[in-house]
Amino acid sequence: MRNILLIGAGRSSSFLIKYLLDHSAEQNWQLTVGDISEKLARQKIGNHPNGKAISFDTTDEKMCAAEISKSDLVVSMLPAHMHLPVAEQCIRLKKNLVTASYVSKEMESLDQDAKQNGIIILNECGLDPGIDHMSAMKIISDLKSDGREIISFKSFTGGLVAPESNDNPWGYKFSWNPRNVILAGQGTAKYIMNSKYKYIPYNRLFSAGETIHVKGTGSFDGYANRDSLAYRKAYGLEKIPTMLRGTLRHQGFCRAWNVFVQLGLTDDSYTIEDSEHLTYRKLVEAFLPDEIAGNSVSSRLALFMNLDEHHDVMEKIRWTGMLEDQLIGLDRATPAQILQDLLEKKWVLKKSDKDMVVMQHQFIHQPGKSGQGTQTEETISSLVVKGEDSVYTAMAKMVGLPLAIAAKLIINNNVKLKGVQIPVHEEIYKPILDELEESGIEFIETTKKI
Amino acid sequence: MRNILLIGAGRSSSFLIKYLLDHSAEQNWQLTVGDISEKLARQKIGNHPNGKAISFDTTDEKMCAAEISKSDLVVSMLPAHMHLPVAEQCIRLKKNLVTASYVSKEMESLDQDAKQNGIIILNECGLDPGIDHMSAMKIISDLKSDGREIISFKSFTGGLVAPESNDNPWGYKFSWNPRNVILAGQGTAKYIMNSKYKYIPYNRLFSAGETIHVKGTGSFDGYANRDSLAYRKAYGLEKIPTMLRGTLRHQGFCRAWNVFVQLGLTDDSYTIEDSEHLTYRKLVEAFLPDEIAGNSVSSRLALFMNLDEHHDVMEKIRWTGMLEDQLIGLDRATPAQILQDLLEKKWVLKKSDKDMVVMQHQFIHQPGKSGQGTQTEETISSLVVKGEDSVYTAMAKMVGLPLAIAAKLIINNNVKLKGVQIPVHEEIYKPILDELEESGIEFIETTKKI
Repeated sequence: MRNILLIGAGRSSSFLIKYLLDHSAEQNWQLTVGDISEKLARQKIGNHPNGKAISFDTTDEKMCAAEISKSDLVVSMLPAHMHLPVAEQCIRLKKNLVTASYVSKEMESLDQDAKQNGIIILNECGLDPGIDHMSAMKIISDLKSDGREIISFKSFTGGLVAPESNDNPWGYKFSWNPRNVILAGQGTAKYIMNSKYKYIPYNRLFSAGETIHVKGTGSFDGYANRDSLAYRKAYGLEKIPTMLRGTLRHQGFCRAWNVFVQLGLTDDSYTIEDSEHLTYRKLVEAFLPDEIAGNSVSSRLALFMNLDEHHDVMEKIRWTGMLEDQLIGLDRATPAQILQDLLEKKWVLKKSDKDMVVMQHQFIHQPGKSGQGTQTEETISSLVVKGEDSVYTAMAKMVGLPLAIAAKLIINNNVKLKGVQIPVHEEIYKPILDELEESGIEFIETTKKI
Repeated sequence: MRNILLIGAGRSSSFLIKYLLDHSAEQNWQLTVGDISEKLARQKIGNHPNGKAISFDTTDEKMCAAEISKSDLVVSMLPAHMHLPVAEQCIRLKKNLVTASYVSKEMESLDQDAKQNGIIILNECGLDPGIDHMSAMKIISDLKSDGREIISFKSFTGGLVAPESNDNPWGYKFSWNPRNVILAGQGTAKYIMNSKYKYIPYNRLFSAGETIHVKGTGSFDGYANRDSLAYRKAYGLEKIPTMLRGTLRHQGFCRAWNVFVQLGLTDDSYTIEDSEHLTYRKLVEAFLPDEIAGNSVSSRLALFMNLDEHHDVMEKIRWTGMLEDQLIGLDRATPAQILQDLLEKKWVLKKSDKDMVVMQHQFIHQPGKSGQGTQTEETISSLVVKGEDSVYTAMAKMVGLPLAIAAKLIINNNVKLKGVQIPVHEEIYKPILDELEESGIEFIETTKKI
């Protein structure tokens, strides 16, 4: 019997837990799911004979150490900033760890310790980051072994609502952590284009996008995501002239979202005075420049954004209720908290709604020094996956399955790699992509001369 | 003999040290100046018999405690985030403390401890914050005792270059911490106008200013500064319909500074890739949106800002050298660090240059319930002080003198107040303003019916 400890039983853990329990008999696994809410953990386990729910508090160091020492492998689905104490215990107790989060500086600094203790801490092993790395690396590796030189790589991912469940003007519903959606893009996006570094500050990000076409599915807004430069090394593309990682939204989303950004309503760094007794309309008014005159907040906002009052951007804003005389009713809230609270009532994935994950890699490549072919070509690889309902979402599936398969690989000693890693190594990404393909998660790849 | 310990011998300490030494014989003081650079401390002390220079490292807890315990009063001129360990030692050792910094949340939380230990920690006792509080409180108190109700209070302060020493298109030179100038305004400005809360996010701050006229000196750009709302309570103006605290710059400064803000060049949160080998022009190019086309970076930048290429805003930008093909030469630098380094070469206060501090309070008041008069009136109180040269600046004088006088008041037991305080109490601000007036720091006050 091998013991897997899974910490965090939230939204994205449904498929992960299902996979681990479904394979528990065949693999001889015992699964312990720990969450700050034992009840939530118990709900996800059901009455499966190989599952056990416990209350898990990462600040209780002793309990944390006891549970980790009983396990053979740990999967942490905690929020990114909470992995560190778990990772430190895993190193001390020589237990492998898998997460779906970006590698933080603190996490990166554990690399030597992890190697010395003979364990792997595999991060960025969900959807984005995760499947995007794996599927990109497979193509990069294929192109390289064909002697092709990659001169441009752009990759976009979006967690969206499926067209058949889309019943609002934004084409968006929350299929993952709403807070992350509200704060998405804060900071400065960095990428490289034609060998020139490019920086887009947050306040220009949502007006600086491009249109991404996915055959058979439609067109999307794509905007640059975080630091694309850091992945040049991880992907072995140190000298690539163009590289950009981005996020997808339904067409028209970014231009409307930009209204909230320009107003200042996505700021999470301070609280609004007397927010409980303010209405949404008064809140918007408090952010509109005084010199913008008009008969109504709606007309002033349109003027502020240089739009006609009947523009579809304005329709989207009005639909949220942000211009209505409704009380906010949240005490000492930040602008971002107020916006999230409002949108959580509006962008609800109803029980039977299906979400949709869309991913697209765009490569441009040419013959390398000793390579095949004579022509510059474009390879496009796209993935569209729809969820089953509001619990078994495409998002939960695509975050959970690669994590689960990675856990299986590691616990079965099929991964030799040690240290703090991301899944850009063939021994990890190949078996995961193979098994994902068996579950119907399959990329459509086309190559044409350009 | 009483011992004063002054920690931090930087730019703003010159006048403070001079005052404390000049009064040391009469007051029976011994002054110890501690700085991380003992040499700097020694320079400022000269060979004054009552002065002593020591090397002072706030992270050396033992030395810190030993020096504080030898003193009767501590003045901390450290950067704001470094006061806390000093304040904690002062509480433990029952020593009064004076600073010129804003009260942080951490500092505020020491209030009860300070009171229990019978000491005062007097903060915001320099120029802005400092003289602005004191001079405003004096007028507020006078108006209240005349039975007037204050319906609007705006207050602006600027550390500028004197007109006779102004030889650059910005009308600006560094007379205080350059880093604070570069980062000024980051966050969101909050104020209240006609009983409505107003928020200005950083990316709109420098295009949202107003013009401030100071009789006999000229017109200035004024922009909102930090959280004006928090001072309603401190000033006893809880229900005031309009209140704004702002910063002054020479006219035209804000519109040009906004170019750096809009580009993203004041961001201090991440480093520029390969910054050492980049030129300033290439850096600007990296921030310009691709869709903005033009023959040169200068014409593209003008287009980006919606300006004619010969507009004086563009002249200001060109004057900095930010559009030139000069190497930046700074390794792993943030945009803000690069901008600061460039401007520190340009905005130099030459040896004989005079700086200038300008402050203006604008009050609108009307008869209160039992008050005098029948008419709404405006009271304007303005202060203009010029420095002597690049060492004895107006800035150093106006930061240092109130601190020094406050130290004298406290060490002579003329302040009864205990706890974490700012100088809005008459027993503090009255003697300080009186002595400042004796040194020629005098407000010109006018009142007219409106």
